Amino acid sequence: MAEMMRRFVLARRPSGFPVEADFRLEEVPLPAPGPGEVLVQLSHFSLDPYMRGRMDYVQSYTDPQELDHTMGGGGVGQVIASQDPGFRAGDLVFGMFGWATHGCLPGRRLRKLAPHLPPSTALGVLGMPGFTAWSGLRAHGRMAPGETLVVGACTGPVGSMVGQLAREAGLHTVGITSGPEKRRLALETFRFDACLDRLEHDTILKMMEAMHEVCPKGVDIYFENVGGVTLGGVLPVMNTHGRIIVCGMVAWYSGETDATGQMPLQKVWRMALVKRLTIQGLLQTDHLPLFDQFLEEVTPKVRDGRIRYLEDMAQGLESAPQAFFSMLRGGNMGKQVVAL
Amino acid sequence: MAEMMRRFVLARRPSGFPVEADFRLEEVPLPAPGPGEVLVQLSHFSLDPYMRGRMDYVQSYTDPQELDHTMGGGGVGQVIASQDPGFRAGDLVFGMFGWATHGCLPGRRLRKLAPHLPPSTALGVLGMPGFTAWSGLRAHGRMAPGETLVVGACTGPVGSMVGQLAREAGLHTVGITSGPEKRRLALETFRFDACLDRLEHDTILKMMEAMHEVCPKGVDIYFENVGGVTLGGVLPVMNTHGRIIVCGMVAWYSGETDATGQMPLQKVWRMALVKRLTIQGLLQTDHLPLFDQFLEEVTPKVRDGRIRYLEDMAQGLESAPQAFFSMLRGGNMGKQVVAL
Repeated sequence: MAEMMRRFVLARRPSGFPVEADFRLEEVPLPAPGPGEVLVQLSHFSLDPYMRGRMDYVQSYTDPQELDHTMGGGGVGQVIASQDPGFRAGDLVFGMFGWATHGCLPGRRLRKLAPHLPPSTALGVLGMPGFTAWSGLRAHGRMAPGETLVVGACTGPVGSMVGQLAREAGLHTVGITSGPEKRRLALETFRFDACLDRLEHDTILKMMEAMHEVCPKGVDIYFENVGGVTLGGVLPVMNTHGRIIVCGMVAWYSGETDATGQMPLQKVWRMALVKRLTIQGLLQTDHLPLFDQFLEEVTPKVRDGRIRYLEDMAQGLESAPQAFFSMLRGGNMGKQVVAL
Repeated sequence: MAEMMRRFVLARRPSGFPVEADFRLEEVPLPAPGPGEVLVQLSHFSLDPYMRGRMDYVQSYTDPQELDHTMGGGGVGQVIASQDPGFRAGDLVFGMFGWATHGCLPGRRLRKLAPHLPPSTALGVLGMPGFTAWSGLRAHGRMAPGETLVVGACTGPVGSMVGQLAREAGLHTVGITSGPEKRRLALETFRFDACLDRLEHDTILKMMEAMHEVCPKGVDIYFENVGGVTLGGVLPVMNTHGRIIVCGMVAWYSGETDATGQMPLQKVWRMALVKRLTIQGLLQTDHLPLFDQFLEEVTPKVRDGRIRYLEDMAQGLESAPQAFFSMLRGGNMGKQVVAL
């Protein structure tokens, strides 16, 4: 009997917020690696907000997730068979294996992991989310000491890296998160200078007033992960020549809207003009040629604790859908990973 | 009896679109220049869309126009008395004299005019509007040959300069204007590769379809002067890594709105992310240290006709309000000036 692997496929496109029935758990034969291919047994895979966008059939920066195919995403694990001379059994690698126990990919699409660090770090602090933060600030932040940076989802893997890099660069850092536990984490673990709980400031006006208080010199950089009330509150507080880096808007990924989402374009256009704002869309793949430089610069800082990280580990393949839903609602504490 | 001068003051703040009664024509004694000051008899003054914004009492990039003070703005004329050793009677100068027959300013706030060109060019092609176009493209355009640029109000002094500079840089240039006469002007005088009449494409959908046709490779740079249906139509046609330079939005200066103005922020935010747009507010005063370089580079091109310009001359101080209203509605053919 053939050896088997398990995986989640997208069974249907979600209508609004996704539910369990949008996914299907399958058992399929373990593939045999063809020439140049490498078979990997995963130890962890990643759950990221961008995956919700791919589940709709719309034009975006990536192709939509195909129905009845393995849910796409990054994973790490150990090589168990290799037809690529660059890899051998036992090697720890990263690749886009998806929500599955095993994966088989061409060797040229894999990356070997840095030694002496948990493999799961390649999914977060030293992976796509960490690189998103690093490359976005580098390309578009124009950070200057003494300036103020605000970032939403500030205990997540992007937000916590943004805050720590800005802190290193001498900025006043303000995180926005949800709930007292994550607020404490932002202040104590990620050392934000201030942190607002968006659940306590649940209208644009309240958020704006709170933002004024914790950003007495206004906001120079807003790193946008969330949209929603955080965006609504920060816009009026932006300084002249402020930069808004639009990286994500998790509050709106499932078609939700709110007062900020409905804000008239005209108002934003006027702000952009009067304050000479730069509003810049960010996608980390545009910056991939710098990935090695990112690893070289940030890996030592992760090793010695100058850059801290936190992972939220769901246990077992079956836990993936619920962990994904929870993450979309902000229920995760740190980078959401599934451990197999 | 003292010599007299005439001027328009702002009599009250307009409610919506301005009317004659918002202004008051006054006769006041001609000032005598104090130490360091220069008295000038104006030959022309400028009417610009930004003046409408200053008539409201709101926070903007300039202080509001004060009530009962001379309507602010640029003017050119001849020195008739000087207490500044750098100027003497007969010199042609530019200064912020306002809507008036005469003005008195410190010499350090005046600029002598380039010889051998009509003085009025210092209000348009070689003045603030021309510099706005030049500095905006230089700082934020990242123009590359073969790219496509779209600009609204394309026969105005900013738009026509934007189009001509982009054309020189090897871009495919598309202008948007209103009416067949200005469309002809855009194509023949300013040599746009294509020109759309926004009155013929008066919904976002119609404008978008027309834009698709004249921009077969999409839009890389949109120089925003107007807002309204032009903006609504160009947004869906923007290319990945497109640049939007927000310089003005004359369609909305008097509190008007429309389908584009009401477009939800959420939609724009998503476009910015998916296409990694740069949306950049532009104010020419941020770039003033480059003004001499602008004059040096562009003046020879204006002299020999490589850069063309067109002026719409209203005759006499009294004509200023009506000429201003007409300009806000797009009734001017080229840079709107009042000749005294």
